[in-house]
Amino acid sequence: MRTAEKSRVVVVTVQYYKLCTTGEMRMRSPINSRVKSLVRRRLPIVAWLPEYSWGKLLQDALAGMTVGLTAIPQGIAYAVVARLEPQYGLYSSFMGCFVYIIFGSVKDVTVGPTAIMGLLTQPYVGQYGADFAVRISNIHHRRLIKRSLKIAQKSVYFSLQVLLCFLSGCIMALMGLFRVGFLVDFISMPVIAGFTNAAAVIIGSSQIGTLLGITGRAESFVDAMRKLFERFDEIQLGDTLLGVFSMILLVGLKNLPGNRRGSAGRKLMWIMTLSRNAVVVVLGMLLAYLLSLYGLSPFEITGDIAAGLPSLTPPPFSTAHNNVTYGFVDMVRIYGTSMASVPLIAVLESIAIAKSFAKGKTVNANQEMLAVGLCNVFGSFVRSMPTTGSFTRTAVNNASGVRTPMGGLVTGILVLLACGLLTGTFRFIPKATLAAVIIIAMYYMLEIKLFRLLWRTKKIDLIPLIVTLITCLAFGLDYGMIIGIASNLLSLLYYAARPEVIFEERTENGASILLVMPQQSLSFPAAEYLRERVMNWCDSMQNTKIVVIDGKNVRGIDTTVAKNLSLLSTDLEARKQRLVFWNWCENASSVLISFDSANKEHFKRTNALAQVVGEYI
Amino acid sequence: MRTAEKSRVVVVTVQYYKLCTTGEMRMRSPINSRVKSLVRRRLPIVAWLPEYSWGKLLQDALAGMTVGLTAIPQGIAYAVVARLEPQYGLYSSFMGCFVYIIFGSVKDVTVGPTAIMGLLTQPYVGQYGADFAVRISNIHHRRLIKRSLKIAQKSVYFSLQVLLCFLSGCIMALMGLFRVGFLVDFISMPVIAGFTNAAAVIIGSSQIGTLLGITGRAESFVDAMRKLFERFDEIQLGDTLLGVFSMILLVGLKNLPGNRRGSAGRKLMWIMTLSRNAVVVVLGMLLAYLLSLYGLSPFEITGDIAAGLPSLTPPPFSTAHNNVTYGFVDMVRIYGTSMASVPLIAVLESIAIAKSFAKGKTVNANQEMLAVGLCNVFGSFVRSMPTTGSFTRTAVNNASGVRTPMGGLVTGILVLLACGLLTGTFRFIPKATLAAVIIIAMYYMLEIKLFRLLWRTKKIDLIPLIVTLITCLAFGLDYGMIIGIASNLLSLLYYAARPEVIFEERTENGASILLVMPQQSLSFPAAEYLRERVMNWCDSMQNTKIVVIDGKNVRGIDTTVAKNLSLLSTDLEARKQRLVFWNWCENASSVLISFDSANKEHFKRTNALAQVVGEYI
Repeated sequence: MRTAEKSRVVVVTVQYYKLCTTGEMRMRSPINSRVKSLVRRRLPIVAWLPEYSWGKLLQDALAGMTVGLTAIPQGIAYAVVARLEPQYGLYSSFMGCFVYIIFGSVKDVTVGPTAIMGLLTQPYVGQYGADFAVRISNIHHRRLIKRSLKIAQKSVYFSLQVLLCFLSGCIMALMGLFRVGFLVDFISMPVIAGFTNAAAVIIGSSQIGTLLGITGRAESFVDAMRKLFERFDEIQLGDTLLGVFSMILLVGLKNLPGNRRGSAGRKLMWIMTLSRNAVVVVLGMLLAYLLSLYGLSPFEITGDIAAGLPSLTPPPFSTAHNNVTYGFVDMVRIYGTSMASVPLIAVLESIAIAKSFAKGKTVNANQEMLAVGLCNVFGSFVRSMPTTGSFTRTAVNNASGVRTPMGGLVTGILVLLACGLLTGTFRFIPKATLAAVIIIAMYYMLEIKLFRLLWRTKKIDLIPLIVTLITCLAFGLDYGMIIGIASNLLSLLYYAARPEVIFEERTENGASILLVMPQQSLSFPAAEYLRERVMNWCDSMQNTKIVVIDGKNVRGIDTTVAKNLSLLSTDLEARKQRLVFWNWCENASSVLISFDSANKEHFKRTNALAQVVGEYI
Repeated sequence: MRTAEKSRVVVVTVQYYKLCTTGEMRMRSPINSRVKSLVRRRLPIVAWLPEYSWGKLLQDALAGMTVGLTAIPQGIAYAVVARLEPQYGLYSSFMGCFVYIIFGSVKDVTVGPTAIMGLLTQPYVGQYGADFAVRISNIHHRRLIKRSLKIAQKSVYFSLQVLLCFLSGCIMALMGLFRVGFLVDFISMPVIAGFTNAAAVIIGSSQIGTLLGITGRAESFVDAMRKLFERFDEIQLGDTLLGVFSMILLVGLKNLPGNRRGSAGRKLMWIMTLSRNAVVVVLGMLLAYLLSLYGLSPFEITGDIAAGLPSLTPPPFSTAHNNVTYGFVDMVRIYGTSMASVPLIAVLESIAIAKSFAKGKTVNANQEMLAVGLCNVFGSFVRSMPTTGSFTRTAVNNASGVRTPMGGLVTGILVLLACGLLTGTFRFIPKATLAAVIIIAMYYMLEIKLFRLLWRTKKIDLIPLIVTLITCLAFGLDYGMIIGIASNLLSLLYYAARPEVIFEERTENGASILLVMPQQSLSFPAAEYLRERVMNWCDSMQNTKIVVIDGKNVRGIDTTVAKNLSLLSTDLEARKQRLVFWNWCENASSVLISFDSANKEHFKRTNALAQVVGEYI
C-alpha cells in the first residue's frame, strides 16, 4: 500500500481470521450451531424443503417433465454409446435424479448418463451387454481385454459397468468427504476443452456408421474413419435418409424462435425446442412402426428391449463363468486407470456444470462430489452405468424454470414409467435416429470457437489444448487426459525455472552499473539461472563495478535461491564487483540474511538508486 | 520504474538482445570467429595451453602429486564401497585426470571414483567382482538380481560396472551436447543435501562392520544396523583398535595447523594434512607388513590384488556364461532406473563442485557435463567404474595451488605407477584402515549444520530435505531422490495453486468495498481458488457493492484465469455487486479483454482508489 493512499483510507475490518485457506467460513460458534451448519451443508434439502410451496412444486413438475422428455431419448442414446442394451440407459437415468434431491446443492443440475461417461464405460461392456459374465483368464490389463475382444469377440462377453459405477461413486464421495476437490484445479480450461472436443469427435465419428446403416462397431476414432472408407459401399439408403432427416429436424427444432412467456404458439415452439430429442425419436419410432404394419423395414431398429423395472440388487463383487470365479480384485485390475479417470472426469463434468449454473451463488465443490458420488453408489443397485451431471439436461432444466432440485422427482418418475410401460414400443426406435441425436449433441459439444479465442487471447494456451486433443484422439481419452495435464503442469514448472528478468546497464551517479530486475518471486528452479545470467552479463561488461538486484517484484525466495545469491556475491567479489540488494521486502531479505549474515551489508533500503550507488563509489 | 526516478536516470544501453534465454552470448560475428569460439568452448585446453609456462608446470606438478596421494587411497577405498577389487579403484582414477585436461573448464576439478558413485555401482557388482560373467536367467529387474544375490550368492557373480560407466558417460556427454543441463535446476539444495546426507549415512554405516572386524556385507542402512547388533559378539579387537586409531589419526591430521607458505615445519604439516589418507593407509600397511614378518595377523588385510595396468579393451556389449549369451539389451535392462540416476547424480556432483571452485568465473554447465561424460566414456576402455568430480580431491587440488587442469597429468601418472608397481604391497592394506578412511570422509560429508540453517532461514525447506533423507535411507538412493524431487516440485505447484491473496474490507469515498490483492501472477491452478475466495467473502458481507481486484502484483494471467474472472464478474452482477479491475498491467489486462470484450468496462487505471470507487456510487 502506498503511503499517500493510506491516509485517505479507513480500513474498517481486516478479517484475515475469517476465511481460512479452504475458502470456507470457520467461525467459532457453539457446537449445536456447528452441527446444524454441517447438516445444512451435507444435506442441502434441509435448507430448502421447509420453505417449499405449491407454486414451486408446479414449476418443478413442469421443468421435471421437460427434462424427462430429454432424459429418456438421451439415456437410450448414451446406452448405445456405451454399447449397453437401451434399457440400461433408462436404469441409469432415474436414481441420480432422486438422490440428487437430497444431497444436491444446485437446483438445476441433473445427474444421469452422459456421452463421455458412455464412452469411458464402453471398454467394459461386451458385445451382448449381458450381466457380469467374464471369461478371460489372466486378465491384468484393459489393453489385453481389448485385444481379446477383437480376437474372440463372440466368446467374450461381460459387462462390468455396474461395479465401475459403484466404485467410481465411492471414490467421488470420498473425494468430497476428504475435500480433495482442489485436485480438479490442476486441470486447466484448455485441457478440458481439448478433452471435450476429442470426446465429441470420437463419439460422433463412432455413430456415423450407424447413421448410414453400416453395421459393426469402431474401436476408436481412427478405426471409425477407416471402417467408413472401407465399407463405403455398404451404406443403406433408408437409414441414411432417416438419419440425415433426423439431424436436420434436430437443428431446425433447436433454432425455433420459441419463448417461454410468449403467445401459445411461441410457448409450443419453446417446448418443442426443449424436447426436440423426444420429438425426433418419437417421430422415427412412429414411422418405423407404421412401416412395419405394411411389412416394410427400410431401416434398422433397436430391437427387443427387456421390459420392466430393474431389480434392486447390490453391485456384483465377484462373478463366475464356466466354473471360474473372478473376485473383486480381478475386476478392479480390469478397470486399471479407469478407476482414476472415470471419477475424475465425472467430478470435472459435474462441478463445471454446477458452477456455470449456480449464477451468483458459491458452489461447494466437495458437496457436489459427494452428491454425484452417492448418485452413483445408489445407482449401482439398479444396474446403472457411471453417471454424472449432464450439461444438456441441466440446461433444459434451467430453461424450464426449475425452482429446487425437486424437479428431479418428476424426471425420475417419468423415466421409471418409461421403463415399466414403454420398453415394448422402444423396440421400434430406429438406430439411425439415435445416431442422429448423438451426432447433433456432439456437434454442439465441439468448441471450435475456442481455438480462435485462445489464438486471440493467449496463443501459448493453444499448446495444452492441441496436445490434449491429439493425444486423446490417438491414444484414447484416459491417456490423452494424463498427457495433457502433465504437459500443462510442466509448462508451469518451466515458468518457475525461467522467470522474466530485466537487465539494464545504466550510468548512475557517474558510475556504470548493472540493474537486474526479476519480475516475479524466485524459487529453486530459477536459482542457478539467475546467477548464471548475471555472471554472463558481467563477463561482457568488465568495467561495471556495481550490480544492483532490484527486489521490488520478489515477494519471497527459498534457501536454494539464497545460497545462489550468496555465491553470486562471493563470485562478484572475486572480480572486484559489488552486489547490492535494493528494494527487497522483509520476507525475502530475512531469508537471505539468515542464510548468511554477511549478506546483511549488501542490503540497501534507500529509495533512490543514485543514493545507493553513491555509497559505493 | 517510478516516474520520479526516471528523470534522474540515464539509461545508457538496454542490451536485451545480447543475452538469449540460454544465458550464453550469441553475438553476430563472422563464421570464422564463431568456429574459434566453439572450439575454445568445447576444447578449453586450446585457450590455456598457449599461455602455459614452466612456473605453472611446477605448481601443477606439486598439486598433482598431492592429489595423487589422496587419489590412490581413496580409489582403493571407493572400490571397496562398490565391492570391486581394489585395483578397479585405481583403474578408475587415472583416465578421468587425463581426459579432463583436454575438455575440462575448471582448473581444480578432479574426476575419479567417488563414494556416491561407488554406492550406486555396488548393486551391479557380484561378490567376486570378476569380469562380466553373468549367470542369472531371465533378468529383467535390479530387484530380482538383488534377491538372486541373496539366494545364491556364491553362484552369481558378475560385474557390470564397466558398461554402466560407458553408457552413463555417453548420456552425460549427450546431455552436454544437447544442452539439457537445465534439468539439474529442478533439484533444489535441500533435496541435494538430503541425498548427500543419506549417502554418507549409508556408506559410513556399511563400513562400521569392517572397522570392527565383522565379516560379511550389508545391503542397506537398516541391514547394516541390524547386522551390527546381531553380530556384536564377533567384534575383533585388532581390527577395532586399528580402525579407531586410524580415525583418530585422520581427524588429527586434518586439523594440523599447517600452512602452505609458512616455515618448513608448517609446510610439512600442511602436506601431511593434504595427504592424510595416504599417510594413514601407508602406516596401516607398514604395520600389517611388519607384524606379518613375525607371523602375526591381528587384523584382516585386503589380500591379493591383480598386478599391472589394465588392458585397453572396449567395454563389453555382450557377455556369456555357461553357454548363455546376454546381449546389450539384457544388460541395459539390468540397469533399470540407474541408467537415469547414475548420469544425473554424476552431473549434479560435478557441476556443483565446478561451480563452488570456479570463484568469479562462469561455469559452462553443458561443457562440464560433456567433459565428465567423456572421462567416463574413455574410462570404460580401462575397466573403470562410473566416475565424476570428487569434492575431496578437488579441494586438495585447489588448496595445493593448482594453476591449470594440467595437474591431472601428474595425478594420473602417479596412479598408473601405483597400478604398475605397488599393487603387490597394497595387499597388506588393513581393511579396517580403509573403513576408517571411508567413515571419516563420510563424516565430513554430513551436513548437520544445514538442518539448523534451514530451521533458521526457511523452515518449510526442511520438508524436502527430510523427505529425501528418509526415503533415501528407507528405499535406496534412486527412489529416494525421485520421491524427494517429486515432492519438491509438488510444493511448487501448490504455491501456484494457492497464491497469497490479501482481502481487505474498506470504506472508500463513503462506500464499503472489498479490496482483493493477489500477491503474485495467477495461473490456472489458482483460477477457481481466487474466484471461490472472493465469492465466499462476498457471501459474508452483503452490503458491499464493489469488489476491487488490485492487479499491481499480477504480471500475467492465462485464459483459465481470464475465464474465471469473467465468470466472477457475471456472478457478482447477478448479486448486484460490481467487479472492478484496478492497477492491472497491459500484459494481464489484454488477456482479460481479449477473452471477453465485456471485461473492458471493468478496468480502471485511475491512480487513486477513492476516485475509482467514486465512479460507481
